[in-house]
Amino acid sequence: MADPSELEARLTALEARVRVLDDHEAITQLLASYGPSVDSGAAEATAALWVDDGVFDVVGSSETVGNFTMTGRGDIMGMVNGEGHQSLIHHGCGHVLTAPKIRVDGDTATAWNYAFNVRWDEPNERFWVARLSANEWHCARGADGWRVVRRTNVNLDGGETARALLRNSTGD
Amino acid sequence: MADPSELEARLTALEARVRVLDDHEAITQLLASYGPSVDSGAAEATAALWVDDGVFDVVGSSETVGNFTMTGRGDIMGMVNGEGHQSLIHHGCGHVLTAPKIRVDGDTATAWNYAFNVRWDEPNERFWVARLSANEWHCARGADGWRVVRRTNVNLDGGETARALLRNSTGD
Amino acid sequence: MADPSELEARLTALEARVRVLDDHEAITQLLASYGPSVDSGAAEATAALWVDDGVFDVVGSSETVGNFTMTGRGDIMGMVNGEGHQSLIHHGCGHVLTAPKIRVDGDTATAWNYAFNVRWDEPNERFWVARLSANEWHCARGADGWRVVRRTNVNLDGGETARALLRNSTGD
Repeated sequence: MADPSELEARLTALEARVRVLDDHEAITQLLASYGPSVDSGAAEATAALWVDDGVFDVVGSSETVGNFTMTGRGDIMGMVNGEGHQSLIHHGCGHVLTAPKIRVDGDTATAWNYAFNVRWDEPNERFWVARLSANEWHCARGADGWRVVRRTNVNLDGGETARALLRNSTGD
Repeated sequence: MADPSELEARLTALEARVRVLDDHEAITQLLASYGPSVDSGAAEATAALWVDDGVFDVVGSSETVGNFTMTGRGDIMGMVNGEGHQSLIHHGCGHVLTAPKIRVDGDTATAWNYAFNVRWDEPNERFWVARLSANEWHCARGADGWRVVRRTNVNLDGGETARALLRNSTGD
Repeated sequence: MADPSELEARLTALEARVRVLDDHEAITQLLASYGPSVDSGAAEATAALWVDDGVFDVVGSSETVGNFTMTGRGDIMGMVNGEGHQSLIHHGCGHVLTAPKIRVDGDTATAWNYAFNVRWDEPNERFWVARLSANEWHCARGADGWRVVRRTNVNLDGGETARALLRNSTGD
């Protein structure tokens, strides 16, 4: 007959493995929510991906809005509702993010991925890539699940900043 | 000694969590199958991602084939085997889809992602983006696992239709 | 009261399901590591994604370096540290991979995905897509987890080679 103590040890080990999978999937879903939120102009939903005082750092040369830092959900909502972003989505735009590389450490996690900013070129009936960025996401587990504490977005225009950010994801 | 009743409660809770992860992974794999199927011209495999009477709605202005609705696996096979699609894949084309945002509700689920239609420009030795669409996938769990009931694909050319579709994925 | 033998059967079944999810997530993370490693110039980290004698086959017409095969981690490090790749990343480049379709068979697995090679066009302040490839990854589970045994990367320029590779992922 099965030994309950041995079953408990197996169950405990399995719970730990499922916790890792849960965390990975939650963070993957959190990041997969950014594009649909921002491209539909859902300001509150976009801001709610961050913690209350979360930060969104945009670095690099090819964004019409230039380098800037948003601090807190109010700033992020302001960006979504702002003239620049509203113009983008009404002329045709997709913020296309890849599934992230993830490193979980207890109740915090870091994730790295790529984000395309793709725009519709109406006269030529095609899209063009205005921006391709390297992204680092610092996340935290809270009462409502995982949220973004700080996202850093660096244009891949050849500068060392983007390479240094992506290098954080490796053992090198 | 471990109490079997307590073990059972923990096991039941863990089974429920794993069921969610199984569903997410199955739907992620289902959507990840579309590109390789369609770009290799595998008509049966592409159609088999849908339920028998599944629907594939294509909306927007930049597709050479224009707006159209396919109903049932026969229509989807017809699209893959048709002159338009065959010409695309023989001149170089990738249907590149992102990992989806997923919402499961029992035996049905909805997922949202982006799909690039990228084409080879032989003379200029580069690719161009003919289409970037917002996609909503209504899925159902059947005897053979998850299948697509309806996929709606809307070109991100600035119209409200794409924003409304993506907004469905948010709480806004 | 809960029957320990029945609990054990449920636990064993759940362990098998979690093993599949673990494998899928490990392979997804392995492939998600390639872009950040290679775009940051992390030669050792890039090579360490492969087994010691792993192979990286590049096929197709649009890559400045042409068709070539790398065999072993030394060759892969050589590519990352080489003049061609270093020039790419210092002028702005992203190797953007999609989340894979995965088929696990015991201690080996095959995965299929897409990879963009996107490059910064400084004068025109936009990116262009130099390459879009179909990829097949043969992986193996070792003492340190999953590694790449062979990656085949074929440019989607209309040839049958890419279609045949992607067709491997389907039942057709």
